[in-house]
Amino acid sequence: MNSRRLSELAQQLRVDSVRASGAAGSGHPTSSMSAAELMAVLLAKHLRYDFERPQHPGNDRFVLSKGHASPLLYSAYKAAGAISETELMTFRKLGSRLEGHPTPRRLPWVETATGSLGQGLPVGVGIALAGKRLDRTGYRVWVLCGDSELAEGSVWEAAEHASYEHLDNLTAIVDVNRLGQRGPTRHGHDLDAYARRFAAFGWHTVEIDGHDVDAVDRAYAEAESTKGQPTVILARTLKGKGVEAVQDREGLHGKPLKDADGAIAELGGVRDLRVEVRQPPAARMLHAVRTGHLELPRFEIGDEVATRDAFGQALAALGDARGDIVALDGEVGDSTRAEFFAKEHPERFFECYIAEQQLVAAAVGLAARGWVPYVSTFAAFLSRAHDFVRMAAVSGSGLNLVGSHAGSAIGQDGPSQMGLEDLAMMRAVHDSTVLYPCDANQTAKLVSTMAGLEGIRYLRTSRGALPVLYSPTEEFPVGGSKVLRASDTDRLTVVAAGVTVHEALKAAEALDAEGIQVRVIDLYSVKPVDRRTLREAAERTGCILTVEDHHEEGGLGDAVLDAFLDGRPVPRLVRLAVRTMPGSASPEEQLREAGVDAEAIAVAGRLLVEHAIAP
Amino acid sequence: MNSRRLSELAQQLRVDSVRASGAAGSGHPTSSMSAAELMAVLLAKHLRYDFERPQHPGNDRFVLSKGHASPLLYSAYKAAGAISETELMTFRKLGSRLEGHPTPRRLPWVETATGSLGQGLPVGVGIALAGKRLDRTGYRVWVLCGDSELAEGSVWEAAEHASYEHLDNLTAIVDVNRLGQRGPTRHGHDLDAYARRFAAFGWHTVEIDGHDVDAVDRAYAEAESTKGQPTVILARTLKGKGVEAVQDREGLHGKPLKDADGAIAELGGVRDLRVEVRQPPAARMLHAVRTGHLELPRFEIGDEVATRDAFGQALAALGDARGDIVALDGEVGDSTRAEFFAKEHPERFFECYIAEQQLVAAAVGLAARGWVPYVSTFAAFLSRAHDFVRMAAVSGSGLNLVGSHAGSAIGQDGPSQMGLEDLAMMRAVHDSTVLYPCDANQTAKLVSTMAGLEGIRYLRTSRGALPVLYSPTEEFPVGGSKVLRASDTDRLTVVAAGVTVHEALKAAEALDAEGIQVRVIDLYSVKPVDRRTLREAAERTGCILTVEDHHEEGGLGDAVLDAFLDGRPVPRLVRLAVRTMPGSASPEEQLREAGVDAEAIAVAGRLLVEHAIAP
Repeated sequence: MNSRRLSELAQQLRVDSVRASGAAGSGHPTSSMSAAELMAVLLAKHLRYDFERPQHPGNDRFVLSKGHASPLLYSAYKAAGAISETELMTFRKLGSRLEGHPTPRRLPWVETATGSLGQGLPVGVGIALAGKRLDRTGYRVWVLCGDSELAEGSVWEAAEHASYEHLDNLTAIVDVNRLGQRGPTRHGHDLDAYARRFAAFGWHTVEIDGHDVDAVDRAYAEAESTKGQPTVILARTLKGKGVEAVQDREGLHGKPLKDADGAIAELGGVRDLRVEVRQPPAARMLHAVRTGHLELPRFEIGDEVATRDAFGQALAALGDARGDIVALDGEVGDSTRAEFFAKEHPERFFECYIAEQQLVAAAVGLAARGWVPYVSTFAAFLSRAHDFVRMAAVSGSGLNLVGSHAGSAIGQDGPSQMGLEDLAMMRAVHDSTVLYPCDANQTAKLVSTMAGLEGIRYLRTSRGALPVLYSPTEEFPVGGSKVLRASDTDRLTVVAAGVTVHEALKAAEALDAEGIQVRVIDLYSVKPVDRRTLREAAERTGCILTVEDHHEEGGLGDAVLDAFLDGRPVPRLVRLAVRTMPGSASPEEQLREAGVDAEAIAVAGRLLVEHAIAP
Repeated sequence: MNSRRLSELAQQLRVDSVRASGAAGSGHPTSSMSAAELMAVLLAKHLRYDFERPQHPGNDRFVLSKGHASPLLYSAYKAAGAISETELMTFRKLGSRLEGHPTPRRLPWVETATGSLGQGLPVGVGIALAGKRLDRTGYRVWVLCGDSELAEGSVWEAAEHASYEHLDNLTAIVDVNRLGQRGPTRHGHDLDAYARRFAAFGWHTVEIDGHDVDAVDRAYAEAESTKGQPTVILARTLKGKGVEAVQDREGLHGKPLKDADGAIAELGGVRDLRVEVRQPPAARMLHAVRTGHLELPRFEIGDEVATRDAFGQALAALGDARGDIVALDGEVGDSTRAEFFAKEHPERFFECYIAEQQLVAAAVGLAARGWVPYVSTFAAFLSRAHDFVRMAAVSGSGLNLVGSHAGSAIGQDGPSQMGLEDLAMMRAVHDSTVLYPCDANQTAKLVSTMAGLEGIRYLRTSRGALPVLYSPTEEFPVGGSKVLRASDTDRLTVVAAGVTVHEALKAAEALDAEGIQVRVIDLYSVKPVDRRTLREAAERTGCILTVEDHHEEGGLGDAVLDAFLDGRPVPRLVRLAVRTMPGSASPEEQLREAGVDAEAIAVAGRLLVEHAIAP
């Protein structure tokens, strides 16, 4: 396609962006218009992509990090023949695949959901990592960023990660249109300011006029031929380019054009150019997965083993059995025990250093390419990546997240290192699975099971050694629970998980000695919960005591209530949880101070039973 | 203090770090030892600080960003005479002020809790901003960072913010000891790699041997005399410096020394040098607060006003009345309406661009200096700063967080922009307050009330206009609620907040027409909840229906249950919440699709009442 025709194509993308937003009555046409040449040249000359086979292993990967410029993306899809004119006009309407911000839940050509800024490049790094280190089919990853989003620290985590891994298959294209949502960016059109930063982080940089199709073409070619480092193309552009009424003007972010007809005329009218997108090279199917026999570690009942140790061993074993398992850790693999996997499968282990946003984003990218990632760090520090987990759920991405050092039971390190909000955070993620094992064999089984689930699955592990309760042959279905003690005369059910299971068992012994029989349920599947078992226990014992090493909001106690919120009678319930702000202390002191140890359970249980009304 | 004595002091800090960690049986002596000269020279020659008056307005501010090096900090406190030898030996023990990671909850000389890496510098930027733009007493801010934590994107958000604001009162000291927790950092001892990055971000850089006290002294002096930009001192150091068995060795992070006595001997034995820390210059008290008459905006009942608009107007009015109110926004002030404050009080408004971690961190820094910050962005994007909010709670920091564009009701923009997990996140924060108004007058009152609370307070605002329900004279105490409809024959209580209050009222009308009387409670105070009113409603009506524009976990429904989790009988309960993954659609369509509109409430209410058992 020659320059004149490329410019025409860019104008068409502008016109279609204006039309789609106009039909929707909302959207971001001006943010689309600035990047029209950047998109046109990519689509027509550089991207290798088979729109009919989005899973083609040789396909390049395109990520629209500035997800609000979705009209541009959808206009490009139309130009490529992937969607019809009719569908383009469904933009932002109920039931349309063309959402305000693109998501792979709806569209097969979208790699990752965007719309929370500063996430596209980090995920793009993950895809490029897959391409460079695992898939090796030669695909390139193109990420179109806005300039505003370069203020996000996650972009610089990604920049560091990409250059450290020499990702020369990755190109970031920055649409430097000078204007953010509410006004000018910090650096305006100072391309050098951005170039200095990226160069310092080890990137090859190219500065161009983003409306000059020949310059854009040359820049893409330069990126393709640059070896050993990623390239960033910094393109000077104008927001709303091509329409005088909106071009380079403030106050027009995220608004359809007032005079759409006039704008379309000014842009040269409606066109219907079609682009023959380059086909990808032939490539073998991605990672034909070798699935061998899974030999999970086995632990003896009564031995003391930390669940984090069991996680590490199980993950390493899972890696032996399955070639599609990858692991990523945030520079704490010696603590989370991800290092057990790293030692056995270095080629499938990704050290992400202390950058939890990039840690999760890289996993999203790997998952987009069909790999099955396990992401580990301290449970507390997964909160750093909350927005990435949220957006991964919007993508429908499949991630295994493993948070170690859960709760006050970690001991002396104090509250900064304690995961006390992680269950609340992970339960509130759409369609998530939340698992919290109390022994090593249970942990090993759950680590294996979670690989086969959909969506976000979270496993919470503990720092300290805990007695092994279950045989290695016991099964732990997701959505299940284990009744560890039960009798026909139980007057109370204690529901616990993780470290508090062991406290609950001790408390039950003590209460039993006083003549109070107690049912103890190990609720290792916090989401979904085992409604049947909880309801039966409530019917039989009349009241429930929940105990958790977590803040009282959003954790185990609330999970138990899920079983009763359909209008049925609800049992009387008391929730024990960490209500204090812990300091430093030994693990045993922590549980006592927080009021979630055996003694606290016995006291609360006694009170609850003594005031019992027959169920 | 001469060089020899400075070196002696550094050795003392090492010895005391080894001793304190040894006595505790845990802790991070090797991470303390690398920075001993950096700390000794700062304490003895540059820091201006009155330990007896930590609130002295002229005091310099010191932040230990690498919070795990707390033995070094406490050893410095001992050398300055602030704590005793006896107290030093309580390190990490139950009840001690000397926690594993320092927090201002316990120690008056600590500015902010650290221990989650990459947070000290961002908060330091906030303190330096206060010093530069508001306090103007000339204090300097010194932040001691680790090299590992420079991988955190939050550090680069801070770097960008500091240079943009020309914070020449800020010095970052990086203890480049080459080793992270599990092994070498990405850049090892390559100081230039870090220098290039900081220089590109607009900082003055100095590279030194961090064990050469004269070089350290000169570097601090250079930082003090550098104008117009912040300075970073990159200090090459050795982890575990001074003790052969641990110096520059891997695998010894966070472990007391095995042979403490030998190490102490190798370091020259126990010393008891005392440092006369420089006194701060005389300075006026911080921001003598002008408190004028508060004239909140008043809205007419029946008018349609978005709660975000009421927030912006109320905040501007609060800024008129109180000189200590400051506001920060993440480049969406035109959407959150923080721009109303920015226009009236530009000197107290801080534009933080799209960098939500830095946004919250800057507020923590401003709060540390006595200012009362309001932080606003989309509710969804506050998840980006979750770890900062968590740590602010560990600090005991007072923050007002305001999340706009709550829930699916935002409409066409789709799920990436919807706050659907924010209530869960904020409720699980220790000692937080969570407010969710449904009308403009209520919003205005709550915006004013929250300024006077302690800890983390969160206000959730809505995008769309909602009818004004309350008179401007109505009061809304925290922990209260409003019963909007009630009769002696109510058979159901609907509990709602924000947008769903209006849906609940419509549903109650419809059910009333069918002969089902419904009580409607506006639960604007989601945490703490109004236990008394909820319990009374449960007793009178027997069953409760909660309805919220939020995921079902951790939100309004769970908050209502808080009123019943002390062992008392629990009412039958049904919870309506967003269980789907929304796409793009109009606000009305969104509420309908999510099943939280008036129709859904009426259907669920009918079912619940028809199956009612007498309470």
